[in-house]
Amino acid sequence: MKPLRASVCHFDHVPRLAPEPDEIVVVIDALRATTSIACALAYGAREIVPVAHAEAARELAAALSGTLLAGERDNRKIPGFDLGNSPIEYDRRVADKTLVMVTTNGTRVLSALRDAPAVWCAAFANAASVANALAASQAAAVTFVCAGQMGAFSLEDFVCAGVLLDKAGRQRPIRCDDEATAARELYRGQRSALLELLRSGNHAQALIEAGFAPDVDFCAQLDRFEILPAMSEGRIAASRGAGAP
Amino acid sequence: MKPLRASVCHFDHVPRLAPEPDEIVVVIDALRATTSIACALAYGAREIVPVAHAEAARELAAALSGTLLAGERDNRKIPGFDLGNSPIEYDRRVADKTLVMVTTNGTRVLSALRDAPAVWCAAFANAASVANALAASQAAAVTFVCAGQMGAFSLEDFVCAGVLLDKAGRQRPIRCDDEATAARELYRGQRSALLELLRSGNHAQALIEAGFAPDVDFCAQLDRFEILPAMSEGRIAASRGAGAP
Repeated sequence: MKPLRASVCHFDHVPRLAPEPDEIVVVIDALRATTSIACALAYGAREIVPVAHAEAARELAAALSGTLLAGERDNRKIPGFDLGNSPIEYDRRVADKTLVMVTTNGTRVLSALRDAPAVWCAAFANAASVANALAASQAAAVTFVCAGQMGAFSLEDFVCAGVLLDKAGRQRPIRCDDEATAARELYRGQRSALLELLRSGNHAQALIEAGFAPDVDFCAQLDRFEILPAMSEGRIAASRGAGAP
Repeated sequence: MKPLRASVCHFDHVPRLAPEPDEIVVVIDALRATTSIACALAYGAREIVPVAHAEAARELAAALSGTLLAGERDNRKIPGFDLGNSPIEYDRRVADKTLVMVTTNGTRVLSALRDAPAVWCAAFANAASVANALAASQAAAVTFVCAGQMGAFSLEDFVCAGVLLDKAGRQRPIRCDDEATAARELYRGQRSALLELLRSGNHAQALIEAGFAPDVDFCAQLDRFEILPAMSEGRIAASRGAGAP
C-alpha cells in the first residue's frame, strides 16, 4: 500500500488550504465540538449542519423542519438553543434530528471547509474509527486541522492528531511532516498520562473553571463511539463506511 | 519568584512579534545556525552579525576588518565564503573574528529581530546555559521562536524549545501556553530516544542525504558549550552573564 502523506495545520491556515481530490481533511476540535458531533451521530442524529454564527443558525433552523439548535458562546449554551456544546447533553433527543450547530472554533473551521472534497470529524471519542478509515482509504494524503482555541494552538487537538497517526500508522505506512511526527511522538510518550496532560491545556482549564470538568473527562475518553462523521455539501452524517455504534 | 510566561512561535509569526521590554526572545535554529553561533562564540569569535542575504553579507564583510564570511545556501557553503554552516568547521580560526553570517532560516529570523529588546540564541549545544539564564533572569515572559525550515515547522527546533522549558522549569515556575506544554512534554516523553527522533526530522533527513550526517549528530548533543549568545544592536556576542566555555 502506498504511504499516506500526513500533515498537521491550525485554524489560521484554513483559508490557505486547498485540498487535492485524493486528500482527506480531518477536523479536530476535541474540546468539544467534534466530540459532540461524534456523540450526536452515535445517538442517531440524522445530520449536523455546522455554521459560523448564531444568527445564521437560527435562520437555518427556522427554514428547516425537524431541527435542533446546538452550540455555545463563551463555552455556555446560546440563549434559546436546544442544546449547548456538552457532549454529555447529547442523548436520544437528537435521534433522527438535524442539528444546526455553532461553536467558537470547530464549526467555523467546518463551515469554511464545506467545499473541500473529503472532510471528516475526529475526536478522542471516535479516534479508532477515523484511524481505521484513514488506513483503509484510497487517499494519498491527510491533513489534520487542529481547530484550536480562538486561533491559538490547542494541546488537546494536537495530541488527538497524534492518536490518529499512531493508530492509523499501525495499519498503513504514513509519511509524516515534522509537525505530524511531533504530534504522534508527543502522544506516544504521554499515553499513560493522557488525561492529566489534556486537563493541563488552556481550554481544558477554562472549561474546568466554568464548571465543565465532566466534559473534559468525557472528551478525553478514547474510542467511546464507533462512528465516522463525514461532511458532504455542508452536512455532516455518519459515513456508511464505518460501522454503526 | 514569579512564574515565567512561556510561549512558542514559528518563522511566519516573526513579523507580528512585538516583544515587551521584560520579554526575552529565544531564537532556535538547531540545524544548524544557532548551534554554529554557539560553537563560534565558544571558540572565541568576538561577535556574529546575522544577515538575511549573501550580497549584504559580502558588502558588510568588505566594509569591516577582521571578518569572516560564514553561511550556507541549499545547505552548502556559499561560494567565496570562509565558512559554511557546519558547526564542526568552526574552530580556533574564528577566535577574535567578527563573523558575518547568512543562512536560510536562522539568520533571517535574527536579522528581523534586531530591534527586539532581548534576543538570545539557543540550540541543544548550549541548552543548559540558556535555561539557567532564563531561570535567573528578571524577565516576565519568554517567546521561543522556532526558525523552522523555509517557513515550515521543524521538529528539532520544537524539541529544543522543550529541552529549554524542561531545564528552566526545574529552577523556576513556568506558565506554558499550550504549544510550549506540547514541546516540553514531547521532549520529556522522548528524551531517551532523542537522537533517533531528531534524525527523523525532514531537515535532518535532507542534511543526511547531502552528506552532513556528522552535523546532525553534533547538533543533537546536549550542553556541549557553556555559552549564552545574546544579540544587541544586530550583533551577537557571548553574554557576560554566562560563564565562558
